[in-house]
Amino acid sequence: MSDEAGFEEIIGVSVLENFKLDSGKVLPLVEQRYAMYGKPDADGSNVVLVCHALTGSHHLAGPDVPGLPEGWLGPLVGPGRAFDTSRLCIMCFNNLCSPYGSTSPMSVNPDTGGQWGMSFPVVTPRDVARAQRLALRSIGIERIALVVGGSFGGMISLEHALSFPELVDNCCVIAAPARLYPQAIAYNEVQRQSILSDPDWKGGDYYPGPGPVKGLANARMLAMITYRSEQSFAGRWMRGMSDGELPSHEWGAKFKVETYLEHHGHELVSRFDANCYLYTTRAMDLHDVAAGRGSLEEAFSLLKGKGLLAVGISSDILFPSWQVMETARYAGKAGARSLYEEIESDNGHDSFLIDFDQMDEILRFFIREENI
Amino acid sequence: MSDEAGFEEIIGVSVLENFKLDSGKVLPLVEQRYAMYGKPDADGSNVVLVCHALTGSHHLAGPDVPGLPEGWLGPLVGPGRAFDTSRLCIMCFNNLCSPYGSTSPMSVNPDTGGQWGMSFPVVTPRDVARAQRLALRSIGIERIALVVGGSFGGMISLEHALSFPELVDNCCVIAAPARLYPQAIAYNEVQRQSILSDPDWKGGDYYPGPGPVKGLANARMLAMITYRSEQSFAGRWMRGMSDGELPSHEWGAKFKVETYLEHHGHELVSRFDANCYLYTTRAMDLHDVAAGRGSLEEAFSLLKGKGLLAVGISSDILFPSWQVMETARYAGKAGARSLYEEIESDNGHDSFLIDFDQMDEILRFFIREENI
Repeated sequence: MSDEAGFEEIIGVSVLENFKLDSGKVLPLVEQRYAMYGKPDADGSNVVLVCHALTGSHHLAGPDVPGLPEGWLGPLVGPGRAFDTSRLCIMCFNNLCSPYGSTSPMSVNPDTGGQWGMSFPVVTPRDVARAQRLALRSIGIERIALVVGGSFGGMISLEHALSFPELVDNCCVIAAPARLYPQAIAYNEVQRQSILSDPDWKGGDYYPGPGPVKGLANARMLAMITYRSEQSFAGRWMRGMSDGELPSHEWGAKFKVETYLEHHGHELVSRFDANCYLYTTRAMDLHDVAAGRGSLEEAFSLLKGKGLLAVGISSDILFPSWQVMETARYAGKAGARSLYEEIESDNGHDSFLIDFDQMDEILRFFIREENI
Repeated sequence: MSDEAGFEEIIGVSVLENFKLDSGKVLPLVEQRYAMYGKPDADGSNVVLVCHALTGSHHLAGPDVPGLPEGWLGPLVGPGRAFDTSRLCIMCFNNLCSPYGSTSPMSVNPDTGGQWGMSFPVVTPRDVARAQRLALRSIGIERIALVVGGSFGGMISLEHALSFPELVDNCCVIAAPARLYPQAIAYNEVQRQSILSDPDWKGGDYYPGPGPVKGLANARMLAMITYRSEQSFAGRWMRGMSDGELPSHEWGAKFKVETYLEHHGHELVSRFDANCYLYTTRAMDLHDVAAGRGSLEEAFSLLKGKGLLAVGISSDILFPSWQVMETARYAGKAGARSLYEEIESDNGHDSFLIDFDQMDEILRFFIREENI
């Protein structure tokens, strides 16, 4: 399909068999849905691989697609835009464990004929990246010009660059650390407990659903706090009450910030799966580029000669900018062409999905400098 | 009873009838448990009133008392200590809506003979302070030398000073804002939703219990993240796993930070009541010294000629130090002898319950300067 901006979106699916995970376990079948904007060169050297975040999808730009969330990178994709579809091929895979068409706990286990649920194996960002790399190979793409992503997508991007350095020219990590720090693990764990303690979760065997609606909504409400910032909440509503007839001393009266969280809780429940949420947040917890590579220094030494751009966000309370700087520092010490940029915004962690003007400027600069 | 440090703790209870709340509603009976360390002068002018935080109690020092949490201010109370019981009388009331012996949703409504549950009226920090003021009067204490508290206790302290300025000489507010900002309301709301969505909550009619154990535990887990800091979590455990035989890729394997949160969830469930938690966090949301007083400027103008000490905490993510500074700034502009001090610590919001060396130094200075 083609949108006003004049580019095509091609949706495809890659199928792998007997995919071996970091844990040693094997997934008999891995399907991965992907989207492609622009044409790949014969050797794939104009490919920009974009990795999506926790609840995003491979559909990152173009007209709405039924069953998929709205494109999350729209303003940056198209002819003449930072991700210029007239010369680059932009690709994005739906992550392993995401509910938008790739293999996940919602999928059928071919060995049993039933849905996986919690019998699905735990995966890591490295597994997610490796599954995408094998899919790229099966599509005929080897070397890629740039891998880029924000938040969980940034973790996967970094694993692409470190796991396949000979095949990745440049890497851009936005609002993501080189390893999850314990506060982020803690936020994830409280969100998971909210799902696990919902009786409608039923040990993960709630299909065909609707499953732990309240638990998933509560998880999302907490997540939304960590995606925004005090400045953004205070700037929008401060202590404003939602419209209604109840005085503030009555139970049932709501501050605007409460109504906002409630809205986002409901919104996610309408489009996401609770088991997928459990598996993806756990994958995030297990993100540590040093794991199995000796140390952070040894991990980043794999980047020698590459271009690395780390983008922090000034108001990010989930992955504070000093954690993103850490990646730039280690990469620089290891001999990468390392650059750190910061989005100055009150919008918190989600600034990379909101402040497109700054994203555009930063990404254009890097793409130009690295001749991507 | 008397402890090694050589001071007595006297536990008493005050009873008020027909206590009118900010909302206009009337509580037919308000009991308030209190503790007293040291002897009050005839006019009460050596009284230091301490206000406790969300899950604390009036028992703030001395040997353990069955049914009450451990004293939370122990190192600062006793002969020769910052709160010098050889010349000062230290008092603390169990807050209205707290489960440690004061009237709360667990109490019996004398009009129905049943426990209040959610039919208990919503209260504000101003109500909590006024109930304590009326109790002081009934004990024979009018003017007090200092009112001091941290977190929710700081909000109540500020309301004491603003509601009864002629009777309060000095006020010390630790790690608390002059009005709750929306991010803190948001954290409170997610905690409440965790309780409200637990089927064992039963609309608040779960007595004699145990009630929404899982919901309250989850609420506490989230609260604990906001009481600590990334620095404190990273310094203690970073990405360490809890002892056990499970590899990290198995569900059931736990990071140390997860085990820590779980422990604190269980601990609170063993000693606190879920409805009390709902009411106290809502009271906190409604904290706004400007409410009913026109503006922050007009509210703080009531402090003219008083001593005000605001103590922020460098790593506080719940009530960041800039929010505490705001109180000092408004008080100073209004003509109070206003002072801002900061606890430099990685321990986060709870530093005021941990970093007693700094608390001691700051409080001794203020007590000396103000001739308390």
